[in-house]
Amino acid sequence: MNPIVFQENSRMPLYEQLYRALKQNIISGDFSCGEKLPSKRELAKRLSVSLITVENAYAQLAAEGYIHSIQKKGYYVSSLAKPSGAARKNATVYQLPSKETYQIDLRTDRPDAGRFPIASWCRLTRQVLTEQGDDIFRSGDFSGERVLREQIAAYLKRSRFLDVSPDCVLVAAGTECLCDILVKLLGAYRVFGLEDPGYRKVSDLYRSAGARCFYLPMDTDGIRMDALRASSTEVLHISPNHQYPTGVVTPASRRFELLAWAGERDGRYVIEDDYDSELRFDAKPLPPMIAEDSAEKVIYMNTFSKTIAPSLRVGYLVLPARLMDQYYRRFSGFSCTVSAPEQLTLARFMESGMYERHISRMKKFYNSRRLLFLQKIKQSYLSSFVSVEENAAGLHFLLTFHDSPDEEMLCADARKAGIALTFLSAFYRRKPKTVPSSLLINYGGLREEDFDQVLSFLCDWQKKKRPDQTGA
Amino acid sequence: MNPIVFQENSRMPLYEQLYRALKQNIISGDFSCGEKLPSKRELAKRLSVSLITVENAYAQLAAEGYIHSIQKKGYYVSSLAKPSGAARKNATVYQLPSKETYQIDLRTDRPDAGRFPIASWCRLTRQVLTEQGDDIFRSGDFSGERVLREQIAAYLKRSRFLDVSPDCVLVAAGTECLCDILVKLLGAYRVFGLEDPGYRKVSDLYRSAGARCFYLPMDTDGIRMDALRASSTEVLHISPNHQYPTGVVTPASRRFELLAWAGERDGRYVIEDDYDSELRFDAKPLPPMIAEDSAEKVIYMNTFSKTIAPSLRVGYLVLPARLMDQYYRRFSGFSCTVSAPEQLTLARFMESGMYERHISRMKKFYNSRRLLFLQKIKQSYLSSFVSVEENAAGLHFLLTFHDSPDEEMLCADARKAGIALTFLSAFYRRKPKTVPSSLLINYGGLREEDFDQVLSFLCDWQKKKRPDQTGA
Repeated sequence: MNPIVFQENSRMPLYEQLYRALKQNIISGDFSCGEKLPSKRELAKRLSVSLITVENAYAQLAAEGYIHSIQKKGYYVSSLAKPSGAARKNATVYQLPSKETYQIDLRTDRPDAGRFPIASWCRLTRQVLTEQGDDIFRSGDFSGERVLREQIAAYLKRSRFLDVSPDCVLVAAGTECLCDILVKLLGAYRVFGLEDPGYRKVSDLYRSAGARCFYLPMDTDGIRMDALRASSTEVLHISPNHQYPTGVVTPASRRFELLAWAGERDGRYVIEDDYDSELRFDAKPLPPMIAEDSAEKVIYMNTFSKTIAPSLRVGYLVLPARLMDQYYRRFSGFSCTVSAPEQLTLARFMESGMYERHISRMKKFYNSRRLLFLQKIKQSYLSSFVSVEENAAGLHFLLTFHDSPDEEMLCADARKAGIALTFLSAFYRRKPKTVPSSLLINYGGLREEDFDQVLSFLCDWQKKKRPDQTGA
Repeated sequence: MNPIVFQENSRMPLYEQLYRALKQNIISGDFSCGEKLPSKRELAKRLSVSLITVENAYAQLAAEGYIHSIQKKGYYVSSLAKPSGAARKNATVYQLPSKETYQIDLRTDRPDAGRFPIASWCRLTRQVLTEQGDDIFRSGDFSGERVLREQIAAYLKRSRFLDVSPDCVLVAAGTECLCDILVKLLGAYRVFGLEDPGYRKVSDLYRSAGARCFYLPMDTDGIRMDALRASSTEVLHISPNHQYPTGVVTPASRRFELLAWAGERDGRYVIEDDYDSELRFDAKPLPPMIAEDSAEKVIYMNTFSKTIAPSLRVGYLVLPARLMDQYYRRFSGFSCTVSAPEQLTLARFMESGMYERHISRMKKFYNSRRLLFLQKIKQSYLSSFVSVEENAAGLHFLLTFHDSPDEEMLCADARKAGIALTFLSAFYRRKPKTVPSSLLINYGGLREEDFDQVLSFLCDWQKKKRPDQTGA
C-alpha cells in the first residue's frame, strides 16, 4: 500500500482524501483482487484519523464496487477489469473558438430588444410565480400550457380573423424545436421543399433532423409552380406573407395554386412560416394561407422572436386536426420544451393586451426608422447607383447596386471597418446565372448612428471604386 | 356582384367587411378574371361609406393579389387559380382527448415541486430582468449562456470533483432536446443501445429522432457485457449511478469493462445519464463514469428536473472536446433552446449557493419520507408478503410481491380506487421468462396520507385475494 498523505489545508474532507488514495491503490494494482483491507479500527489508528473517517471512506468504496465486505471477516478488494488508461485528462483546457463580433452587424433580422417592456414582463413573472404557487413547477400539457394555447388562438382570431382550436396549437422552444417536431411528425423520409434563396437555418434544421431537402427557385410571386411540380417535394416550407430575404409576397392566385398542389395527394403539406407577419406597415397583415385551407393541408408556424425577442425561445404550430391527433397519439409522452413559468407569463402578457400594444408601438417605431433610413439613402451620394426593394413589411429591405460591385471585396472592406454585411447571393443553394447585387439591410436592431456609418462606408466605397471594377 | 350588407354592430371594421365581401365575390366567380371594378368613388357612393373605407379594402385586396390597378384606368380582377374547395371549415371543434387523471399517481418519479424556494427564485428573476436590461433579450451562445455553463462546471467540480471545461457544456431544453442533439451529433444511422428494462421516454425520443435502438438485458451490475458485445450497439445510453426502474448501481468493475468496450472502436460512446445522482441518502453521490474516462468516450447528461422541477426544462450535456468541436462546426448556427432570462436566473441560483442548499434540504426531506414509508410497509399486514428493493437513492423503490399476484387485475382494481400503479414488467421491451412482481413506488411527490391510502388498498387487496390467485 502506498503511503497515504493527508493534505491538512485542503478543502477536501479527510474521508474523501482517504477514499481517493485507497481507490488509487486499488486501480494501480497495489492492492490486488481478493486482498483483505486493514480493519477500520486498525487503519484509523495507523493513520491517526477518526474511525468515522475510515468508515465513510470504506462505505464509499463499497458503494462504488471497489471493495466488498464479508460478514464477520472484513473488507476485501473486488475483482476489477483494469481501466484502459489513466484517469480523465484535465479537460478544462478546451475552448470554443471566439465569436466573430462586429461593431455593426446587418446580416440577420433582429428586433430591437431594447424596446421591450421589461418592467411589465417582470411584474407578470412575479405574479405568475407567486399566485400560481407550486402548481407552476408541476409538468403540464405536452403541447403547451392550456392558457397560453387559448391566448394564441384568441390572438389569431382578433388579429387575423382566424378560427383555430386551442387544442390544435403546439407550443415549443423556437424554430429549432418546431422543425424537429415537424420532421418527427411528417417523417424524415419525406422530401421537404424550401425556397431558394431562403433562410438558411430552416434548411439546416430540417437536414440535421434527417430530412431530405429540395431547393425550389422563385419568381416574383413566390415558389415557381413548374419547379415544384417537377420536384419530388411532399412538404413545402414557405413564407408566403413576406419571404426572407427577397421580401416577395405571394399573391392569392399563386396561393390557390399551391393549395391545389397540396390537395392533389395524401401526405402533401404546406408549412406556412409566418415569421414576421405582424410587422406590416402599409396595410393590415395579410390573411395567412391557412385561412383558405379547406382541405387541412396547411401547417401554420410562428414565433415570438420578432415581436418580443429571439432569446425568449417560444414558437408555435397550428396543426390540422388530423395531424394534431397523430402527434397526440405518438408523442404526447414528451414534454413541452418551454418552461411553464415562461409560458404562463407570456399568456398573461397576451391576455392583458400588452402584447398587442407592444406590437403596435414597435410597428410605429420600425416604420419611422425604416422611413428615415430610406430617406437617408435617397439623399446620399449612393442614390444614383442603387435602388431599394421593399414592400413596407418586416425588418429588412434590399439595397440593389446597379453596377454589380465585387461583392466579396465590398464585404471584406466592410469587415475591416467593423461592419458585417451580406448579399442576396449568399442565400442561394443553387445560384442562377444572374443574381442582382442586393445588399441585405436588416435594420430592426440598427441604431441611427450605426446606419449613418454604414451609409458613409458605402458612399466612400462607391466613390473610390476603380473604373475597372465598374460593370455599368 | 352580390349585394354587400354591412353588419353595423359588428366589431369588424367596415373596410374589413367590404374587403371580405369583395374577396368572396372574386373567389366565387361573381367577378370574373379581368373584370373592371367600380371606381373607389363610385363604390363609396353606392354603399354610402367613406372613400377611405373603399380605399383600404382595395389596398388590402391588391396587397393580397386579388385585384391589380392599371394606371389611369382603375382596378381589375386578377387571374386566379380557383380554390379547390370552400374556405377553411370551423376548426375550433377539435379537442384533445382529456387526460387520464388519478387522485394518486405512483407511476412516474416526480420531485415534490411544492418545496422549491419560489420566493428566492422570484427575487433572482427580478434581479436578472432589471439588472441585465435589454441585453437579456439579445440572443446568446448556441451552447447556453456562458455564466450558466461556468456555474455548471463549478458545481460539478465542487460536488463531484469533476474537471470540466465550461466550453464542453451544452445547455438545452430538457431530455427531449438533449436526445435530439445527440442523434444529430452522433448520427441517426448509429445503433443506440438502451437498458432493458428502462426509462421508456428515452428510447421513444431516440426513435422519434430517427435512431435505431437496441434493448440490452441487465444483470445485478447493469448492462450485460455478453449481450452488449453480441449486439451492434455503437452508442450506449445508461444510468450507471442509479438505474431506472431497477435501482441497480453499476460497480467499478463493470464500469471499467464498459469503458474498455467503448475504447475498442471509433464512434463508440457511452452516454451517462445521471438523472438523479444528487439524491443519494447513505453515501455521497457516486463519481460518474466520466471521471475515469481517459479516452473521451463518455458523454455526461443531466437535468434539473429532479432537483428543481421538470417544468423548468433545463438539461445539459458534458461533451468530449472532440465532439463539442464537431457540434460547434456543424450546429453553432442553431440557438440554445432555453430562454436567456431563465438561464441567467438559474446561474444566479447556483452561484448564490441556493441550489446546493435546496438539494441538501430536499435530500433530508426525501430521506425522512422514504424512511417513514418503509417503516409503514414493515408495520403493515403486507410486510410478510413483500420485500423492498432499494439502495438509499433516488425518488423510487421497488415493492416486490413474493406470491406473484395478477398484475393486471391489481392495477385495474387500483384504478377503480383512484390509484395509478405500474409494475416493473411494464418497463421491459423484451420481457424475460421470469420478472419479479415488483411494484414501482415513486414516492418523491407523494403525500403521507396518499401513501397511507395506497398501503391500505394493497393490504385489503392482499387479504381479499382468492386462494386460486395465490401463486405462493
